[in-house]
Amino acid sequence: MNAEILAIGTELLMGKIANTNARYISEQLNSMGVNVYYHSVVGDNPLRLKESIELAMKRCDLVIMTGGLGPTQDDLTKETVSAILGKKLTLHEESLKKIEMFFNKINRPMTDNNKKQAYLPEGSIIIENNNGTAPGCIVGDCKNVVVMLPGPPSEMKPMFEDTVIPYLMEKCGYRIVSKYLRVFGVGESQLEDKIMDMVDKQDRVTIATYAKAGEVTIRLTCRAKTTEDGYNDIKPFEDEIIKRLEGAVYSTADEELEEVLARILLEKNITVSLAESCTGGLISAKITNVSGVSKVFDRAVVSYSNEAKMEELGVNPETLKKYNAVSRETAMEMAEGIRKASRTKLGLSVTGIAGPDGGTEEKPVGLVYLALSDESGTISKELRLWGSREKIRNMTSLYALDLIRRYAENNGFEI
Amino acid sequence: MNAEILAIGTELLMGKIANTNARYISEQLNSMGVNVYYHSVVGDNPLRLKESIELAMKRCDLVIMTGGLGPTQDDLTKETVSAILGKKLTLHEESLKKIEMFFNKINRPMTDNNKKQAYLPEGSIIIENNNGTAPGCIVGDCKNVVVMLPGPPSEMKPMFEDTVIPYLMEKCGYRIVSKYLRVFGVGESQLEDKIMDMVDKQDRVTIATYAKAGEVTIRLTCRAKTTEDGYNDIKPFEDEIIKRLEGAVYSTADEELEEVLARILLEKNITVSLAESCTGGLISAKITNVSGVSKVFDRAVVSYSNEAKMEELGVNPETLKKYNAVSRETAMEMAEGIRKASRTKLGLSVTGIAGPDGGTEEKPVGLVYLALSDESGTISKELRLWGSREKIRNMTSLYALDLIRRYAENNGFEI
Repeated sequence: MNAEILAIGTELLMGKIANTNARYISEQLNSMGVNVYYHSVVGDNPLRLKESIELAMKRCDLVIMTGGLGPTQDDLTKETVSAILGKKLTLHEESLKKIEMFFNKINRPMTDNNKKQAYLPEGSIIIENNNGTAPGCIVGDCKNVVVMLPGPPSEMKPMFEDTVIPYLMEKCGYRIVSKYLRVFGVGESQLEDKIMDMVDKQDRVTIATYAKAGEVTIRLTCRAKTTEDGYNDIKPFEDEIIKRLEGAVYSTADEELEEVLARILLEKNITVSLAESCTGGLISAKITNVSGVSKVFDRAVVSYSNEAKMEELGVNPETLKKYNAVSRETAMEMAEGIRKASRTKLGLSVTGIAGPDGGTEEKPVGLVYLALSDESGTISKELRLWGSREKIRNMTSLYALDLIRRYAENNGFEI
Repeated sequence: MNAEILAIGTELLMGKIANTNARYISEQLNSMGVNVYYHSVVGDNPLRLKESIELAMKRCDLVIMTGGLGPTQDDLTKETVSAILGKKLTLHEESLKKIEMFFNKINRPMTDNNKKQAYLPEGSIIIENNNGTAPGCIVGDCKNVVVMLPGPPSEMKPMFEDTVIPYLMEKCGYRIVSKYLRVFGVGESQLEDKIMDMVDKQDRVTIATYAKAGEVTIRLTCRAKTTEDGYNDIKPFEDEIIKRLEGAVYSTADEELEEVLARILLEKNITVSLAESCTGGLISAKITNVSGVSKVFDRAVVSYSNEAKMEELGVNPETLKKYNAVSRETAMEMAEGIRKASRTKLGLSVTGIAGPDGGTEEKPVGLVYLALSDESGTISKELRLWGSREKIRNMTSLYALDLIRRYAENNGFEI
């Protein structure tokens, strides 16, 4: 099966928003084995809309349209498709009731033009919209399947997942099952190297890698009769990759690093405090993004000045003088200092040069020291990062979160 | 003039990336008065590519293509356009030299296929690429103008701005001048109300508003012979809006709130420290995103636990007991505490309930207290926010930055 994704939206042509719907639908269709041949965007001009739909139906089996299902006179998607297919629009009572209920719920009167949304092409499969007023539909003849969905992603996505995917699966006779392994601490090329032979030999289970801001995601996908069958087929590949990457896979459920970390800390009741310099609170901001983490996260000190390092963390003035604020020695005293001040099991510290200014030949931009302290001792780590200030700060925060994660998973320092 | 934006990219059809180039180019073309009628995306299939280009040239005067200019056999944009226009591809010596220099710079051997990128349609205007290897070009006949640009946004955007915009302006005989006013503390609908009459009467200078994560941007645009003329035309509108919004316009140069704040603090040498609870370091992370801010930013304490509030900030245990951690009283003691501990001119604090858990009837999710302290006293502010944890934390951090900005601009508390 091949497909065209056709968006109807003047706001797309005006450049107010990007066509993220097309990206999302393409990804879904490709993972189902449907080839996407074209994306198109057209405005609400009736003639250009009609020509675009006819063209899409001529050149593809499956046409997925987004937008133009709303209550106004400009919304012409259903009207135009119905005219092309020679079908009437008929009132769908259930959809009308849902729209009326929606207005009741938000306590606003329903204007008459909203009824237009409940008229759908005769014989079509209705796609319920639980997040807005316009239902979608699937309609077709012997040659084409045309799917019409509303434009807002928050409405479109659940409708696509709940109705369109099962419909297409049913049509194809199988389902697509995917698992996402999240990896930190191994670069994309290094990772490809480690699993190259598996990628080369991929057959029923496909392996794809995506790099994103210092992290890599591995997607394992296969077609199967049931979700359980799919997971069973994926399992040996998943296990092999986890083994080969030696602890670098931090999630097999597409979670963020801070979510995984917070979960492990809460499970094992490991308390932690932070002393941040160059990251300026970013590590703390990430950890506290997870609701409920206050049970194990006590405090952070962003010690930007040397005074703050001495006063809040008890860093020895001699250490700062002899080794400078950006040094392994300072990092270690910071980590110990915050651990003792907050009486947590762990203290983590970061000090470095995020740039773009402030670097020297000896201590260049991107030089960062991390330290992690527990009652048995303190370890440190030197990073040599590159790129923008934002990138260096973000990478540093990921290394910091991962350092704590590895400690928590191993119940102690890694050797 | 009307335009089609045609992207060539299998990675777009695979759903790996969204077509943000089309959004960017559409915005630019619309602000120049060029109507964008279509966006299309096609892969590197030669037949479908040829048909898509022919269709675009048939239905639009201006065709802007992105992608398919690289060194591989799959990159067919120039070849296909040249064949359609009956033009030869000829070697452009300067471009070849630039490509060779590029490989020299990154210290890698230039493989032979890279030469392909220096072959351009005869008679075309070459668009230099200073951020990659593939040059772009503008080519046309009596009916169409076809612009070819590389796909990576970091290469495409400067090429579009440096060459394509001036080319189209020249063709049109004028330029478009825009100014962006950034606003915080006034909602979009409230703002529209305040400037409604100006928007209704807009003529040569157009006024558009865009809401984004709690902020609003106002774009003032006009056509003019020169940039200076344009700014002169915009000035009275800009001044009027600034006056009407009473201090809510924090930038007239499209800067982020933290950049503006850091600049004013540095200019006036106002030192600041932070005590964060529910934002968990986010305010600190934003401020320290600005390089050089260490001269005025001393430290932040993320006092997540009550112990941290007492130990690090000197909050009275009685206050926590009587009023709770989320209270005006606690916020004020936190702000005073961090100011005294760090001996900065200002101390700012935040305490609140970011949710989704932890709310009560009396203290619901979204209740936040801010306090700002200087040697003359301490003021506080109650916020009632709503939405996700992320949204509440982000909004709180913007309110906090804006509170400090207003203090710094007024050289004291606002009355």
